[in-house]
Amino acid sequence: MSIIYTIDIIGTFAFAISGALVAIKKEFDVFGVVIIAFVTAVGGGMLRDVLINAHPINWMGDINYIWTILLAVVFTFLFKSKIAPLRKTMFLFDTIGISVFTLLGLQKGLAYNLHPFLALVMGMVSAVFGGVIRDVLTRKVPLIFKKEIYASACLSGGVIYLLLENISINNDLQFVISATVIIIIRTVSVMKKYELPKIKGDIFTSFNK
Amino acid sequence: MSIIYTIDIIGTFAFAISGALVAIKKEFDVFGVVIIAFVTAVGGGMLRDVLINAHPINWMGDINYIWTILLAVVFTFLFKSKIAPLRKTMFLFDTIGISVFTLLGLQKGLAYNLHPFLALVMGMVSAVFGGVIRDVLTRKVPLIFKKEIYASACLSGGVIYLLLENISINNDLQFVISATVIIIIRTVSVMKKYELPKIKGDIFTSFNK
Amino acid sequence: MSIIYTIDIIGTFAFAISGALVAIKKEFDVFGVVIIAFVTAVGGGMLRDVLINAHPINWMGDINYIWTILLAVVFTFLFKSKIAPLRKTMFLFDTIGISVFTLLGLQKGLAYNLHPFLALVMGMVSAVFGGVIRDVLTRKVPLIFKKEIYASACLSGGVIYLLLENISINNDLQFVISATVIIIIRTVSVMKKYELPKIKGDIFTSFNK
Repeated sequence: MSIIYTIDIIGTFAFAISGALVAIKKEFDVFGVVIIAFVTAVGGGMLRDVLINAHPINWMGDINYIWTILLAVVFTFLFKSKIAPLRKTMFLFDTIGISVFTLLGLQKGLAYNLHPFLALVMGMVSAVFGGVIRDVLTRKVPLIFKKEIYASACLSGGVIYLLLENISINNDLQFVISATVIIIIRTVSVMKKYELPKIKGDIFTSFNK
Repeated sequence: MSIIYTIDIIGTFAFAISGALVAIKKEFDVFGVVIIAFVTAVGGGMLRDVLINAHPINWMGDINYIWTILLAVVFTFLFKSKIAPLRKTMFLFDTIGISVFTLLGLQKGLAYNLHPFLALVMGMVSAVFGGVIRDVLTRKVPLIFKKEIYASACLSGGVIYLLLENISINNDLQFVISATVIIIIRTVSVMKKYELPKIKGDIFTSFNK
Repeated sequence: MSIIYTIDIIGTFAFAISGALVAIKKEFDVFGVVIIAFVTAVGGGMLRDVLINAHPINWMGDINYIWTILLAVVFTFLFKSKIAPLRKTMFLFDTIGISVFTLLGLQKGLAYNLHPFLALVMGMVSAVFGGVIRDVLTRKVPLIFKKEIYASACLSGGVIYLLLENISINNDLQFVISATVIIIIRTVSVMKKYELPKIKGDIFTSFNK
């Protein structure tokens, strides 16, 4: 479990940097950068915990998340001219983080006795909604709604995890296999620029609300 | 109660289609369309349940909501060129849905021993905030804040419901009368294009925050 | 405590006017103006209470907040041409309100046995996030992220409060000193136009999500 905790913290660090970079680009002040880094890193898990009534919620139950985020902001300020060349390392951390966020969220859902399908949704909320909140606060259309296989990777890995749940398999192995599926799908799809299909809304009429 | 449940599901279906159409028009991918359909349909009740601490929250306590929403998304994809001619049917479903959402939200508030006025607010939150969340996520100014008698219809029906609460009236009749008030007000106001008054903000100065 | 309660209500009134003015400027209808006034005034405390699981949440536990907000909306409609000359009075109310919101939020966090640092965060959430939600709903980049010493004032006053917590000092005096710090910092910084530093994001690359 301590390896997973370590990866969770590394993922939090990577997500926080991602948020801090967006906020810096938007010329937010220091306070704004911290807030955006914060919601990017823990917003998904926070939403999950509010929805499933898990208190204390993620970052209030473990103060290390806040320190990790503050450290990530300082790191981003100090090394922002160095981060660009680190793109691939950052992408790796981020992708590993996503896989862990998804599976930890799913596990938490199961631990709260949710229907497996709802637990799967909670895994995706954990991995995805930090970025959604970041985009809402920085006035972007949430990118994930437009061209990201990201969510599909989380979904696939979560489904694998649930399928393996029914087999008598070692728990760590179940976690590692599912995480690997997420990491591979995301990495391959970013390399090959896969996107989910869009449906042209040519006949749309605003009949409603 | 099973008639009301049926109408609740139909309203959920209509709201989900409304959300899906907005997301398709915005060229969201499949994942984005599902999320927007989802928040449009259950976002209001979800917010209500988080605020009044009613767990499991609406869509987590009854998996049928999720299936209904997924079905509505598939329906929208398959028949989007056919939905425009169905405008009036959709408007009817949507309006019936709103009336049921308002009154079920109000009832839930009363069941949680809220002050009647707060229960009324919860009824409106249930009916209105799904659309607000949809608009925030798709980067529109929430339409309901600008030209919708929608909220007034919900408010009126909710007040009628509370007034009838003090009379010894059959519970179903109380529900039907209040729902009818909402349906009539919304339908008439859309037909006649009523709007709530606006107040020109000509003297506004941003003295504050 | 009744003086603090009075100031809390006055702060709520000032925040609600601030929200109502923004909504009027955006040409929202009456319903929209009420909603924006509402979230501006109680949104921060509402978010705090959801996060720390304090039910009933702020405005549901005391109906006076709603009446105060409705009164503030009526007041704004009636006197909007008179409010501009009252800028300084409004600024004073608003600043006093912020200081009380921060410290009451912090106290509530401590009462819920949060780590002092988390209690401090909750104080800032209480004072700041009403304005953030207002800006999201009215489609502005939250101003506080870009040029507001506002948050720094709350942070400083909160830190003072926590430091004084360790000294055997009269509780009222502790509150008054901390509130005064917030009021002075905010007033001086608005007068002198201090801003938090920004970091130019010249090397930003969207490598991530």
